Amino acid sequence: MMMGDDVENGNLGPYQDRPRTFPNMRSKTYTPLIFRILMGINVRVLVILLLLGFGYVFYVGASTSPIIVFVFSVCIVSFLLSIYLTKWVLSKDEGPPEMAQISEAIRDGAEGFFRTQYGTISKMAFLLALVIFAIYLFRSTTPQQESSGLGRATSAYITVAAFLLGALCSGVAGYVGMWVSVRANVRVSSAARRSAREALQVAVRAGGFSALVVVGMAVIGIAILYSTFYVWLGVGSPGSMKVTDLPLLLVGYGFGASFVALFAQLGGGIYTKAADVGADLVGKVEQGIPEDDPRNPAVIADLVGDNVGDCAARGADLFESIAAEIISAMILGGTMAQRCKIEDPSGFILFPLVVHSFDLVVSSIGILSIRSTRDSGVKSAIEDPMTILEKGYSVTIILAVLTFAGSTRWLLYTEQAPSAWLNFALCGLVGIITAYIFVRITKYYTDYKHEPVRTLALSSSTGHGTNIIAGVSLGLESTALPVLVISVSIISAFWLGHTSGLVDETGSPNGGLFGTAVATMGMLSTAAYILTMDMFGPIADNAGGIVEMSQQPESVREITDVLDAVGNTTKATTKGFAIGSAALASFLLFSAYMDEVASFANESFKQVDIAIPEVFIGGLLGSMLIFLFSAWACSAVGRTAQEVVKEVRRQFIERPGIMEYKEKPDYSRCVAIVASASLREMIKPGALAIISPIVVGFVFRVLGHYTGHPLLGAKVVAALLMFATVSGILMALFLNTAGGAWDNAKKFIETGALGGKGSDAHKAAVTGDTVGDPFKDTAGPSLHVLIKMLATITLVMAPVFL
Amino acid sequence: MMMGDDVENGNLGPYQDRPRTFPNMRSKTYTPLIFRILMGINVRVLVILLLLGFGYVFYVGASTSPIIVFVFSVCIVSFLLSIYLTKWVLSKDEGPPEMAQISEAIRDGAEGFFRTQYGTISKMAFLLALVIFAIYLFRSTTPQQESSGLGRATSAYITVAAFLLGALCSGVAGYVGMWVSVRANVRVSSAARRSAREALQVAVRAGGFSALVVVGMAVIGIAILYSTFYVWLGVGSPGSMKVTDLPLLLVGYGFGASFVALFAQLGGGIYTKAADVGADLVGKVEQGIPEDDPRNPAVIADLVGDNVGDCAARGADLFESIAAEIISAMILGGTMAQRCKIEDPSGFILFPLVVHSFDLVVSSIGILSIRSTRDSGVKSAIEDPMTILEKGYSVTIILAVLTFAGSTRWLLYTEQAPSAWLNFALCGLVGIITAYIFVRITKYYTDYKHEPVRTLALSSSTGHGTNIIAGVSLGLESTALPVLVISVSIISAFWLGHTSGLVDETGSPNGGLFGTAVATMGMLSTAAYILTMDMFGPIADNAGGIVEMSQQPESVREITDVLDAVGNTTKATTKGFAIGSAALASFLLFSAYMDEVASFANESFKQVDIAIPEVFIGGLLGSMLIFLFSAWACSAVGRTAQEVVKEVRRQFIERPGIMEYKEKPDYSRCVAIVASASLREMIKPGALAIISPIVVGFVFRVLGHYTGHPLLGAKVVAALLMFATVSGILMALFLNTAGGAWDNAKKFIETGALGGKGSDAHKAAVTGDTVGDPFKDTAGPSLHVLIKMLATITLVMAPVFL
Repeated sequence: MMMGDDVENGNLGPYQDRPRTFPNMRSKTYTPLIFRILMGINVRVLVILLLLGFGYVFYVGASTSPIIVFVFSVCIVSFLLSIYLTKWVLSKDEGPPEMAQISEAIRDGAEGFFRTQYGTISKMAFLLALVIFAIYLFRSTTPQQESSGLGRATSAYITVAAFLLGALCSGVAGYVGMWVSVRANVRVSSAARRSAREALQVAVRAGGFSALVVVGMAVIGIAILYSTFYVWLGVGSPGSMKVTDLPLLLVGYGFGASFVALFAQLGGGIYTKAADVGADLVGKVEQGIPEDDPRNPAVIADLVGDNVGDCAARGADLFESIAAEIISAMILGGTMAQRCKIEDPSGFILFPLVVHSFDLVVSSIGILSIRSTRDSGVKSAIEDPMTILEKGYSVTIILAVLTFAGSTRWLLYTEQAPSAWLNFALCGLVGIITAYIFVRITKYYTDYKHEPVRTLALSSSTGHGTNIIAGVSLGLESTALPVLVISVSIISAFWLGHTSGLVDETGSPNGGLFGTAVATMGMLSTAAYILTMDMFGPIADNAGGIVEMSQQPESVREITDVLDAVGNTTKATTKGFAIGSAALASFLLFSAYMDEVASFANESFKQVDIAIPEVFIGGLLGSMLIFLFSAWACSAVGRTAQEVVKEVRRQFIERPGIMEYKEKPDYSRCVAIVASASLREMIKPGALAIISPIVVGFVFRVLGHYTGHPLLGAKVVAALLMFATVSGILMALFLNTAGGAWDNAKKFIETGALGGKGSDAHKAAVTGDTVGDPFKDTAGPSLHVLIKMLATITLVMAPVFL
Repeated sequence: MMMGDDVENGNLGPYQDRPRTFPNMRSKTYTPLIFRILMGINVRVLVILLLLGFGYVFYVGASTSPIIVFVFSVCIVSFLLSIYLTKWVLSKDEGPPEMAQISEAIRDGAEGFFRTQYGTISKMAFLLALVIFAIYLFRSTTPQQESSGLGRATSAYITVAAFLLGALCSGVAGYVGMWVSVRANVRVSSAARRSAREALQVAVRAGGFSALVVVGMAVIGIAILYSTFYVWLGVGSPGSMKVTDLPLLLVGYGFGASFVALFAQLGGGIYTKAADVGADLVGKVEQGIPEDDPRNPAVIADLVGDNVGDCAARGADLFESIAAEIISAMILGGTMAQRCKIEDPSGFILFPLVVHSFDLVVSSIGILSIRSTRDSGVKSAIEDPMTILEKGYSVTIILAVLTFAGSTRWLLYTEQAPSAWLNFALCGLVGIITAYIFVRITKYYTDYKHEPVRTLALSSSTGHGTNIIAGVSLGLESTALPVLVISVSIISAFWLGHTSGLVDETGSPNGGLFGTAVATMGMLSTAAYILTMDMFGPIADNAGGIVEMSQQPESVREITDVLDAVGNTTKATTKGFAIGSAALASFLLFSAYMDEVASFANESFKQVDIAIPEVFIGGLLGSMLIFLFSAWACSAVGRTAQEVVKEVRRQFIERPGIMEYKEKPDYSRCVAIVASASLREMIKPGALAIISPIVVGFVFRVLGHYTGHPLLGAKVVAALLMFATVSGILMALFLNTAGGAWDNAKKFIETGALGGKGSDAHKAAVTGDTVGDPFKDTAGPSLHVLIKMLATITLVMAPVFL
């Protein structure tokens, strides 16, 4: 701690004399071909290609449905808006040269890792695409598909193309998230030298840019695929495919997105937390130097981690959430429309796309509304950034409720059941309320204004052990309320849908599942704004790091600290939101799977009876999968962090000048260690998640074949999926909340409570924070990607189990 | 650490001059009436009453079935043997007066807590008995019961009587476990002054005594109830109840046993770990004095905890395991015999009782076999106690395989399916092998001879944080192999039973579930020996504490240390065994529940379809219940430990003489704090476990009533039960293994690895051990009681859901 004082005195020694020697990973990394091609194309050619693309898109859209044209238009407008936001952000200055240098080092590290990581991921994706292609070539096709001339080869091409497009879009979503964050961070730092409000605005607009791109791309990607297939397969004309069967062809897109998101989240999560834990353990705990101190050799790796772990991974993650949920809801809408013999089913099928188009509109308004507070608020200089963000959220939510109700009236009104749209609007309201309550619950358990975190902080005063016990208990306990809320939501949405008046031929109500789908859409109807708030966090965190590293005055650091703290809260609430929507969507995904199996097996598949031993075993294996996956994700961080600790200790011992600012630490070695370790470590849990449902399904299919039990493989996989979802929701809630609470308990003590920084209580709280890091930023967020990936992989791989 | 040296120099100051001032809680505690009555009765009167009892027992047994007479005889012989073992143990000397004093203080503390705790539990049991009585008075009876004249009132009396008897027996089982351990501990300490082998033998025989009593009581209790009901209800005579329906009347016994065991485990578990964690945090971590140092004010509370937490609670726990599994297997056997129209079903029904009778026989031989090694082993003085125990286990297992095969041939042979007994014998073998593999897996993950614990120890060298992350990962990962083993066991036992040739009227195979039941019996066929090894642990631990507190020479402490270490391993393996048998039995318990519901609702109940939203929600709530229960169990320990920490710190500050042996710490205050806190804290998780399935079942019953969904309550409860079982198995495996591994990682470092005692790695390992304490000794063991209690509570409370 004593050494830390030197920093404030500006005693930097020879450190300042050696600029531009920050690590550059570019030369070491492998650049995938696709990046090289894209970067090699002339800008004008790109623009022409883009315009041609838009022309094509509108052409097929117009041949499909006016709804698609609406969706396209909204997406394109929001892309234009996002370009405006980028230009605005990039027009800001990069601050003094020392800031720019640090930012450049971070950017190089992040982009280098991103390329290597996505190189690995794309190789795996191509391999998997081949496997899928082979499986689909030998699969059986549904009778409807046969009659509509959709043979095996066509079906294989469609699925593989959708998979690759989904994977590509997911990758681009991640890249966009990271691209803007590595450029915005330094601009936020620089703006913080002038005013808190300007810094906030830069961070929010940068986050808004990637949020709009991510959501817009999910929507437009699905819309393009849908309308292309529609036109190509001649849907609607007699003798060809029915429009209600079309959404099933999109599952590959969702799986591609989930596949990339899982590895992005795992690799990025391991990277960011291994660097963070490693840096903290030696820097903060052993040496007593502050966070992000330039003397810590792991500090650049830590800052790089924020970008690749939080920005890139979260972009891919939210992209796949939205894509998977849109596709499942489209499948359910199609199935229901068919069963209820609705004359024009396109409204039910395209509803999710319209909801997300409105999401783009209302969230843009919310994001831009943050500017106005800047103009009016000249008098009060110290407005809480959280209040500003929440005001924007309120605007967004109110508009979302209105547009949602409008969309239901527009698309879900049928003459068969004139009041059905009202029931569905209420379902949407259930979803929006659920989202709101989830955010409140997460805040209650992770914000130090409330009792749980204060109790946790208090338990730090009796030592490391009681802090960990209390944190684990808090995390486990925090699963209860969200589960109760989800239970009430699913049941009430189901019953609202059930009683909507939509009945099938036999007169029995059929809208229940679609009700839960609409509730999920309601929950996600402000996704772009939520994602903006989420992206804001790591940008602010990084900005703080740059301020600290470039030795700015304390007042600047204070501004970024406030933004960072707000970012922590918004990050935690986004995780609550993401897991809540995954939980609400779970039923959607199961039902889509069961519809798919029924359609391929050409027999009814409506029950998953866990009183059958094999099916129960499937459930047991599914839950176990979650535990094992979490174990591997956490231990990957632990192992990599140990490598970082050893490297940092080695540097401190071998270069004693570092601590006196006489020698510059070798940042690039830490970056390289973390990058290669996290690439290595992400494979094992990722492979587990992909391979185990396939293996379980196949083994039980064979077992079912020999014991005369038809569809056993599919049933066992269904149970695996459902139990994994339940355990995954609980485990993710536990890990996210415990991690967030530990983090904030530490922050609470750092405000001066219980002895403040440096006290024994603080040391215990730092241990808790360290343990919470892989919980909340590696295993936890990976789990909710995993839940949805399990659903999409079972959808795509269903032929293996039948 | 410096102060610790004084101890070895024998510098005890005035401490030795003030004997017999150890805390005595007796005066403060409330003694329940039943204890006062029992203690007031003259011994001779008791003997006469006992003989009369035996006469009655043999009379009803003889009127029921010769199998029952066999069971009675074996139980009585093993009771006689257990009396011999007690006499043998009690004939050993209590060592020097200082040992006796400490032992007396421990005994007083333990017995005082036991009485208060069981006073509370018995009040709750009586209250619950009233509730059950009221429910059964208003329930609907099954048509068969109506026709056999078993009216509502009779059924209510029977259930309540069985419940109270089960609760009483469970209480007695706990008391017996504690009674012998508080007497044996000092005798083991004293014997350790002479030879390691004698100490081992005393501990094993004391453990053997309570194991025989616990298992014997479970068996004889059920046998008495069964034959009493048989005679009373005139089973077998025309027009009255069928023998195959009889086992359903016993469910109250299982529920009573589980009810008491849950609170015993919770209260005892909180007591023991709060005292342990509190003592360690201040003593070991802050003051650097050794474990069980007499200067630590919480040391007596810690030693008391071993007895009430490990001995009393584990006795009640294993009692309920065996009782619940026997009853479920009897129900399944009865149902199957009825469906397959087996002429004499009593063999199938009474099979579990016979298996456990043989268990008593073979385990006794195993326990007594340990003596022979003592006689022959004069040459090699330093034989590993683990080897001796494992030799005994091998003897027991070999005999168990033989007697099990014999029992299947004797009881499960029918002319309808002449080779069925062979299939069931193989099922039993599956169970025995599963038990063996479970024990191996637990050892692999918790023994420091193997890689996982060594890796964990290594992660301690990079700090508290990485130690905790590695431990949590290890625990989560350790769930995988046991789940795979259980999956294979359940499926193979099911298929062995399915293909046994037992078919129902329609010719479809019907023996599958009974196959899993037989496998569970196989797994439990050496339960008494396993329990002996388990009881051995805390007795050795306590003996070590007494040796340390009474300042014996280092050589004596070394002997008890070795025994303690072996005890740790046997404790961990018993937990693996217990959770394995609970997992294997889970299917039994579900099936028994579904049979019961079908029988009362008078309609088929064969499916638990989680594709129905409400049923899925039931599952979600069930899993959540496990998380919340674990949270409350752990946080209870954390909170209580904090109280202990504060008290111990206060004493050290207010009485500075303690550290110089000039002043005696106030042990009794710590005992009182822990006792009252653990009584208070056990209520919340216990109530949660009991109330939530009832509430969920009732709410969904009402919901099902209004939405026209029959049996909805029962289905939702079934899903709750199954998901809770799955999550419970995984969570218990995680908690037990992580706790055990942390404990042994610390022990590994204490052997001198990674810097040994006092190093930073050791400090981090102590933190891990502290965190592991509530995991492995409070929440973990409570969870597997919870799993079975959920099954029995749903069995008993089924009328509420219908």
